[in-house]
Amino acid sequence: MAGNGFGQVFRFTTFGESHGPAIGCVIDGVPPRIGLSESDIQPWLDRRRPGQSRFTTQRREGDVVKILSGVFEGRTTGTSIGLLIENTDQRSKDYDEIAERFRPGHADYAYWRKYGVRDHRGGGRSSARETAMRVAAGAVARRVLDSVVGGRGVSIRGAMVQMGPHGVDRAKWDWEAVLDNPLFCPDPEAAERWAEALDAIRKQGDSIGAVVEVVAEGVPPGLGDPVYDKLDADLAKALMSINAVKGVEIGDGMDVASLTGSQAADEMRMSGGQPTFLSNHAGGILGGISTGQPVVVRLAVKPTSSILVPRRTVDIHGNDVEVVTKGRHDPCVGIRAVPVAEAMVAVTLADHLLRHRAQCG
Amino acid sequence: MAGNGFGQVFRFTTFGESHGPAIGCVIDGVPPRIGLSESDIQPWLDRRRPGQSRFTTQRREGDVVKILSGVFEGRTTGTSIGLLIENTDQRSKDYDEIAERFRPGHADYAYWRKYGVRDHRGGGRSSARETAMRVAAGAVARRVLDSVVGGRGVSIRGAMVQMGPHGVDRAKWDWEAVLDNPLFCPDPEAAERWAEALDAIRKQGDSIGAVVEVVAEGVPPGLGDPVYDKLDADLAKALMSINAVKGVEIGDGMDVASLTGSQAADEMRMSGGQPTFLSNHAGGILGGISTGQPVVVRLAVKPTSSILVPRRTVDIHGNDVEVVTKGRHDPCVGIRAVPVAEAMVAVTLADHLLRHRAQCG
Amino acid sequence: MAGNGFGQVFRFTTFGESHGPAIGCVIDGVPPRIGLSESDIQPWLDRRRPGQSRFTTQRREGDVVKILSGVFEGRTTGTSIGLLIENTDQRSKDYDEIAERFRPGHADYAYWRKYGVRDHRGGGRSSARETAMRVAAGAVARRVLDSVVGGRGVSIRGAMVQMGPHGVDRAKWDWEAVLDNPLFCPDPEAAERWAEALDAIRKQGDSIGAVVEVVAEGVPPGLGDPVYDKLDADLAKALMSINAVKGVEIGDGMDVASLTGSQAADEMRMSGGQPTFLSNHAGGILGGISTGQPVVVRLAVKPTSSILVPRRTVDIHGNDVEVVTKGRHDPCVGIRAVPVAEAMVAVTLADHLLRHRAQCG
Amino acid sequence: MAGNGFGQVFRFTTFGESHGPAIGCVIDGVPPRIGLSESDIQPWLDRRRPGQSRFTTQRREGDVVKILSGVFEGRTTGTSIGLLIENTDQRSKDYDEIAERFRPGHADYAYWRKYGVRDHRGGGRSSARETAMRVAAGAVARRVLDSVVGGRGVSIRGAMVQMGPHGVDRAKWDWEAVLDNPLFCPDPEAAERWAEALDAIRKQGDSIGAVVEVVAEGVPPGLGDPVYDKLDADLAKALMSINAVKGVEIGDGMDVASLTGSQAADEMRMSGGQPTFLSNHAGGILGGISTGQPVVVRLAVKPTSSILVPRRTVDIHGNDVEVVTKGRHDPCVGIRAVPVAEAMVAVTLADHLLRHRAQCG
Repeated sequence: MAGNGFGQVFRFTTFGESHGPAIGCVIDGVPPRIGLSESDIQPWLDRRRPGQSRFTTQRREGDVVKILSGVFEGRTTGTSIGLLIENTDQRSKDYDEIAERFRPGHADYAYWRKYGVRDHRGGGRSSARETAMRVAAGAVARRVLDSVVGGRGVSIRGAMVQMGPHGVDRAKWDWEAVLDNPLFCPDPEAAERWAEALDAIRKQGDSIGAVVEVVAEGVPPGLGDPVYDKLDADLAKALMSINAVKGVEIGDGMDVASLTGSQAADEMRMSGGQPTFLSNHAGGILGGISTGQPVVVRLAVKPTSSILVPRRTVDIHGNDVEVVTKGRHDPCVGIRAVPVAEAMVAVTLADHLLRHRAQCG
Repeated sequence: MAGNGFGQVFRFTTFGESHGPAIGCVIDGVPPRIGLSESDIQPWLDRRRPGQSRFTTQRREGDVVKILSGVFEGRTTGTSIGLLIENTDQRSKDYDEIAERFRPGHADYAYWRKYGVRDHRGGGRSSARETAMRVAAGAVARRVLDSVVGGRGVSIRGAMVQMGPHGVDRAKWDWEAVLDNPLFCPDPEAAERWAEALDAIRKQGDSIGAVVEVVAEGVPPGLGDPVYDKLDADLAKALMSINAVKGVEIGDGMDVASLTGSQAADEMRMSGGQPTFLSNHAGGILGGISTGQPVVVRLAVKPTSSILVPRRTVDIHGNDVEVVTKGRHDPCVGIRAVPVAEAMVAVTLADHLLRHRAQCG
Repeated sequence: MAGNGFGQVFRFTTFGESHGPAIGCVIDGVPPRIGLSESDIQPWLDRRRPGQSRFTTQRREGDVVKILSGVFEGRTTGTSIGLLIENTDQRSKDYDEIAERFRPGHADYAYWRKYGVRDHRGGGRSSARETAMRVAAGAVARRVLDSVVGGRGVSIRGAMVQMGPHGVDRAKWDWEAVLDNPLFCPDPEAAERWAEALDAIRKQGDSIGAVVEVVAEGVPPGLGDPVYDKLDADLAKALMSINAVKGVEIGDGMDVASLTGSQAADEMRMSGGQPTFLSNHAGGILGGISTGQPVVVRLAVKPTSSILVPRRTVDIHGNDVEVVTKGRHDPCVGIRAVPVAEAMVAVTLADHLLRHRAQCG
Repeated sequence: MAGNGFGQVFRFTTFGESHGPAIGCVIDGVPPRIGLSESDIQPWLDRRRPGQSRFTTQRREGDVVKILSGVFEGRTTGTSIGLLIENTDQRSKDYDEIAERFRPGHADYAYWRKYGVRDHRGGGRSSARETAMRVAAGAVARRVLDSVVGGRGVSIRGAMVQMGPHGVDRAKWDWEAVLDNPLFCPDPEAAERWAEALDAIRKQGDSIGAVVEVVAEGVPPGLGDPVYDKLDADLAKALMSINAVKGVEIGDGMDVASLTGSQAADEMRMSGGQPTFLSNHAGGILGGISTGQPVVVRLAVKPTSSILVPRRTVDIHGNDVEVVTKGRHDPCVGIRAVPVAEAMVAVTLADHLLRHRAQCG
């Protein structure tokens, strides 16, 4: 209950700080006889891994995942899956200055008020390091989704659709382009402009916010448990639980406030013998249950609070001080939030797929 | 697990459809020896009750709540609290037309795909009728919060801050005004303009979306369980679980995407011997844990899908048809979402308050 | 989490005290499209109902159950099922004497230490009255089991196999006889002797303990989640949670301590093309998972602590006193524990059946 | 939900098979600022470790535990604690014979029916190897109990009170003796006779059952959540979840069936200004709530099913065969069940202590 686990049937529980010996997780509830090996997980971790361009932290995290249990002769056994990643590149000394000072906008102060103690090295448990295990669990969830749904499986893809004030031209959306630029931007032209803008931010020692969008295609209709565990409610929780996220949208999101009922209604017509929606304002979810349309979510990621620009704060002794965070940080954490958000959508869908099977067969 | 309950320690589980004999809930985990009677709950239900102005559905729901257990001689006993509201004004015949047609934007189609059966009368379980029990549980949660926190307790107040394209002037914000107009609008001048606009919408047989904001003051620091049960993650789930909500924001919400790290940082200074924040972009939550600042959330409520404007849809036999929803519906469900959103904030805070006490004493 | 619910997928949550206006429960997770009406539940309640012979409390509890939600046109809808039983025959004045005195062996003292307040009328929440809702939930669980398993369904039958020092002759076991005598005794001859012995106990104003056995046939293999939610672990919890139960056995139970490994092994042979066990020391469960053999459990029920024999105790003011419990009580609560134990086996099996389906399809 | 975790607030989740690279667990919900290091855990593991006498399996398990997270500068931080033990002495070839044959009385067959696949090496997840993590979590639970309760803390001690048909003389009970003989027998004279008897069993290639008793002293009154999460219900689940356990008793256990209400009542008198019980038939729990008396539980452990005596069985191809389990096994797993049972009592009490604090402060 103390918050280090997520999910009901497909449930993963994680541990580990950025500067401890290792991070890891236990995944419970995975169906048996699904093919699974490290090579199903490692590529997703590699996408998230920092240090791949000048736009993410220069920490070198090897992020080599090991499966410790739950897989026998290449297939899941139905028992719990233990995953471990050893931490390798830790420079605790970078953090001496912030040991006693609260970084504005960072979890420092809140942890200190809650627990009366905190591991200040790299943020300890509040570090983005923790998200590596979300990505690992997400990779296993993708295997579950594809295996249980069958056919072409479930496609879950994310992209950064806004960086600071800069948006994308949706007419130019190209999923292939997302993998070709370090900003996961779906509009190749925007990607170039963003790179320039982010360079400027980085050189100022500052950081910038972003909006990430994730689209899941192939989601079967019927997932989601009304009324409190609606699919969109659990997606909102999953995404809001990612570090630095302050807003979550489903389908048209906050913009639905401006619509009339006749505009917002996704009308239907029979097509090829199937009920077919003529639009997707709802983002693939009605009444908290998936409709079979693509599930569309967005999340707003605030700018990293660990910056080189001096900020006013207080220390644990009650003095007014200034703080500058040296370390090695991301000028735009929204970038690395893309694979993390995809992973959280995957674990939420996998959980609800199995939950649906429990009740409805 | 099938979704009719919310919370971990303070947990409520509800039942009931709009056209059944009654709705009710069980609240588990309420601390003992807290003064509680129907008169602590009824006023909040009265605020939510429809039929109070021309802007909400004209169904007359008595909404008289009875406490069936868990209270002895005016105080809670620590055992589960049963609440019941009998349904009184039901006109099932209004729903004959939609028995076999899916209303676009409504849960009809999704329920049918999930369960293969549905109670079409008034939406059954997907009806806004269900939210009465959220409000009742929220009233009990308020008693828990005030009793455990002590002092001036926790104030949780909501307002509608946008209706369709129309916003408010925050310089004119007046909490008293919220209770004085049927739209829960905090800007009295805007309230008048909104009323006119809503009259027009209503006469067209259409509906309109809205944004609701809830502010909780007096929340102790330390609430929230990193990393997956962050306070903001659970608030996001709580609010996204309300019918028709498609977006949730904490603090600056989606706007954080446009900020730099130096802008978004809520700087601190000592004041009166206490660490004090100089701004509240974070909405009172850092790293998923409350900081002691006011907790600020917003939610976007889509326009009612039950409208008189004909919409294209299909029926359960696979025919292309049109549908018009006669019944008695809200032109702007955002209005009634205000007390419901307040209630969901209250239950989430009460749950996390007790959870925090479990781990941290 | 505060203990008024049971189960994960098939989950029921109850409320109500013996002397409040009503008791009730919410059942969540019931699969859709299962035929269900009050007439599926009422007969099981009637079996448990007191006042049917001189051997159970003479309180007249009508125990008329009403379904308030979750069923539409005779079939479950997949939404939560609300059940309500109004309390009718309450004589609170019987309890004045024990308002301030702790009955030895009763929950009085423990509730007072835990909550600092208690509803003393009839034991409040600790009353056996609460078990009516277990029986109601068990009746729904039986419908779920039969519907999901198909074929001849799952048979769950209980009997009293020991009353005080008196046992049964297992060679004379007759399931029909169980329903023919007021003691649920499977050995008709023993039943007569027990009746005489119980008359004597009753006239002394005393009470007596018992052992109840429940056998579930038709349980599919594969139910149970190793390692902490083993099927037998959850059965043990389910049965130990019944008022007055102090011991739980699976299969050979405590007697396994005396066996050697070669004796305890349930050997197997192919028979009719199926692996077949040659004995059932294990009670149908190996490694926490059902094997397809009959599931056999036993529970020891202590004698009612509400007796007319004066006992030494203390009162809430710290005085040494004596206490006699007048009221109307059961000389052997083991009798009414039979339908309750059956119900708890049913809910546990139904829950694990759906849980198994979640993970293993 | 799939069963690899235990507890609600103090919750641990485990992974690992006997012949994989490592076993481990995550403990969530531990209060912050409790002193904790490997040296608080290792001694309890050493007690459980096999190979310490001729009466336990001769596998050499180093069982060296490492804390991977959740502790900073010697104190818990409130974040999840990761524990890891690497497996060192694995001889998978010992298990070739049983790869396709079901050992009677073993989990083999049930796993195969549930999952359709199983790791047969040493029993995989069903191996007693898994109990090492229970002991590790129990050690952390002891630290939580002592830290939160304060004063002299909570003492949790176990002993083997029956081995096969051989009992102990309770008049000779000596807790010191328990640690002085390899059978954890509290009666030194019985210990010698038992050793001889067990030697004979071992030489026959057979095994024998046992009864273990655990006594917890210093348990505060008020722990336990009526009505389904009673303290004794959760203890029953905790103990029945241990491999090979088939019966669980609280206080007088199965013997309560033979008692009258006047006998079973634990009478009370004021003593030293405190309500004091004159006996403890109830085993320290009334109405599912601790009373402050010692909590007394017993569990029956069946004889190991991995024996050298040939048994009739079938194989996965549907052939009638015989099976002999070579490997290195315990002639009496009841011995190693002692520290495991203590640990399960500790985790259950720690969880309920924090749960009680959540609701009742």
